[in-house]
Amino acid sequence: MSTSAKTDQPTGMTVTTPAEREIRIERVFDAPRELVWQAHTDPDLVARWWGRGNRLDIERLEVERGGHWRFVEHGPEGVSGFEGRFREVSPRERIVQTFEWDGMPGYVVVNTTTFEDLGDGRTRVVTTSLFFTTEERDGMLSSGMEQGLSESYRALDRLLVDLA
Amino acid sequence: MSTSAKTDQPTGMTVTTPAEREIRIERVFDAPRELVWQAHTDPDLVARWWGRGNRLDIERLEVERGGHWRFVEHGPEGVSGFEGRFREVSPRERIVQTFEWDGMPGYVVVNTTTFEDLGDGRTRVVTTSLFFTTEERDGMLSSGMEQGLSESYRALDRLLVDLA
Repeated sequence: MSTSAKTDQPTGMTVTTPAEREIRIERVFDAPRELVWQAHTDPDLVARWWGRGNRLDIERLEVERGGHWRFVEHGPEGVSGFEGRFREVSPRERIVQTFEWDGMPGYVVVNTTTFEDLGDGRTRVVTTSLFFTTEERDGMLSSGMEQGLSESYRALDRLLVDLA
Repeated sequence: MSTSAKTDQPTGMTVTTPAEREIRIERVFDAPRELVWQAHTDPDLVARWWGRGNRLDIERLEVERGGHWRFVEHGPEGVSGFEGRFREVSPRERIVQTFEWDGMPGYVVVNTTTFEDLGDGRTRVVTTSLFFTTEERDGMLSSGMEQGLSESYRALDRLLVDLA
């Protein structure tokens, strides 16, 4: 059941809530899958878009089953840490990893991200987030996450142009 | 809804499944609450019972909101790491923390543990575990977790006698 759908023009990010404890986010990038994959897994590249222009320290990014990741973003409103661990890594196809913000420690989300080659030099990235409770999901939806991610993805658009 | 209840004599540990994604474990210790709390939060004491006689390295145990913990158990069948983070710490009363085993990285459980002073020198410890899915809960139930925890709690009984 889809309880809401919103397309954020012009970036074309679509946010839906396919189940009570889930958020699904779909976005198409005008770049080949290999490049989009690198931008998600190479620490030097991640640092150039994930923080939306804010300085981002990649403290750990061990892209393999069991590996940990931890990013620290230095924004105008302060310092925010984010971390998690990889459940599954299938190169260029799929990553399953946990996500946790220092501001709500222990409130873990499982993000499953797929990278689909659209065959015309574009790539569709879909992330489904699973929360422990519906309340935690709704808290994320009301936290400004959509706007933040939308800004990150626009920065990723620009990076992909630079890399091409 | 309680779908099962089992009392493991003589330790008196009771395991139930109060909801689809939960396990509840209740155990009474013949020791005052202050001592039971210390045995759960002082690294030198945790190392003496959590590993059930196996060597346990306490790599991190930051008992405060946002703090991390990580234990490495050295058993006859190999080395196992366990880790998580504290959501909430109310001294002598309640701990909410995540739990994750290196063997299934990213399969996070939220454990809420309460310490109840029974007024006669005994303490009731109740842990409710919340899983992302029922399958993950059932995997934990079939993993030997009950026997392992029962052994840990018997080791804790002995430690509490030594400390008294």
